[in-house]
Amino acid sequence: MSFGSRLDAAWVTSGAMLCIGLDPDPARLPVGVGIFEFCRDIVDATADLVCAFKPQIAYFAAAGAEGDLERLCRHLGDHHPAVPLILDAKRGDIGSTAEQYATEAFDRYGADAVTVSPYLGTDSVEPFLRRGAVFVLCRTSNPGSGDFQSLEVDGEPLYLHIARRVSSEWTALGECGLVVGATYPDELRAVRATVGDLPLLVPGVGAQGGDAAATVAAGADTTGRGLLVNSSRAVLYASSGPDWLDAARRVAERTRSALTLTGR
Amino acid sequence: MSFGSRLDAAWVTSGAMLCIGLDPDPARLPVGVGIFEFCRDIVDATADLVCAFKPQIAYFAAAGAEGDLERLCRHLGDHHPAVPLILDAKRGDIGSTAEQYATEAFDRYGADAVTVSPYLGTDSVEPFLRRGAVFVLCRTSNPGSGDFQSLEVDGEPLYLHIARRVSSEWTALGECGLVVGATYPDELRAVRATVGDLPLLVPGVGAQGGDAAATVAAGADTTGRGLLVNSSRAVLYASSGPDWLDAARRVAERTRSALTLTGR
Repeated sequence: MSFGSRLDAAWVTSGAMLCIGLDPDPARLPVGVGIFEFCRDIVDATADLVCAFKPQIAYFAAAGAEGDLERLCRHLGDHHPAVPLILDAKRGDIGSTAEQYATEAFDRYGADAVTVSPYLGTDSVEPFLRRGAVFVLCRTSNPGSGDFQSLEVDGEPLYLHIARRVSSEWTALGECGLVVGATYPDELRAVRATVGDLPLLVPGVGAQGGDAAATVAAGADTTGRGLLVNSSRAVLYASSGPDWLDAARRVAERTRSALTLTGR
Repeated sequence: MSFGSRLDAAWVTSGAMLCIGLDPDPARLPVGVGIFEFCRDIVDATADLVCAFKPQIAYFAAAGAEGDLERLCRHLGDHHPAVPLILDAKRGDIGSTAEQYATEAFDRYGADAVTVSPYLGTDSVEPFLRRGAVFVLCRTSNPGSGDFQSLEVDGEPLYLHIARRVSSEWTALGECGLVVGATYPDELRAVRATVGDLPLLVPGVGAQGGDAAATVAAGADTTGRGLLVNSSRAVLYASSGPDWLDAARRVAERTRSALTLTGR
């Protein structure tokens, strides 16, 4: 089953375009709760609300917790097999090294899709596209994202040039989406106008300040879908008290309400 | 001691500008030799020849061998403390995530420097620069590197724009070098002309086809140094027979001979 088909089904089943990012910061976990248990409980408490989960591998790597990430990915496959798993790793390296990273993402962790950087060009992304879906960094959500992404190339910003290249060429090599931050709705609208109905992974809602309703208005495709709007910290760390799991679900429900499918 | 001082000392001690990349591909290891043992033996057999070692984390990650990488980095620190350790990871993410990757590189693995991608801009690199040195991807060695890196921005290719930004601004935030492939000597010359005496990490010699002497001619700085010319596969897999370690040293010596300091 293609990634696109899985994602379509997950949009319909969850009724919304919410993706929850799993960024387990040891300094912010509830007292006595380990990385795996924290992520597992968040996942079990919110799986009916989301169209995807997105573990951020940096948090696991910093803690030396690759084993926890393996367990988490197995748990997702065993208990929530219909929910797509996107490994947020932003890989980007020459072809022979990209093969190794593709093995990491798709074999070791069983991801359905992985985030990648476009900077090294087509042959750096092909090894991923042969084995699964990718979300290519386009216009990111951070303050410095304009430093290079907005440089003018042939009369348009670099990120639009990349968006066009991905939608016109890389989609012939495999399943592609793009990463476009919620913190820049005008840019999100421009990317959507450029790439047709490609799925857009949109971080930046919640802790980073992006607005969910504005994101849908700017980024939904012609069918009213097409987005995976990610919230991580606002959900995960909604409360540091014993009610952390209920609080996380409440924030997820609230965020989701601005992201429900309209059946347009 | 700064990274620059350590690198200066390593150039002088080794008498050359050879960096050996540690890319342990399980499919190519000598029979019966594990990932850690392979890398340790290569390191011990060649440490007097090199100005740096550069483990490529993708190979360890694909094999689930982060523990081997930890042991290898500890071994380097214990037995070859004067040789700089560059973690090749090509990280690039928003600030809060970059903090986690910096913890991985500098705390967990004890790296002296890490390779990073520029695509997300200044705030994505700052967390690394606060804690160690970085080598920023500029013009990479792979066939598709021109897809975006050579796009024209303000009358010059994007990679030169990035080189200028790094040398004029990012060096104020911490110690920077650039990654420029040996497979494009003209571009290497252009980068050197743009960035003064910043160290350039130059992959692509050996298996990827770059020529060592041409690399020095195009890329050395005004003192005749300034380069870390990397060879990985040509050294590591010089022989698949029982003579693999002697063969690796012979290839390293031969590569090094084109990279000796001229005392210019």
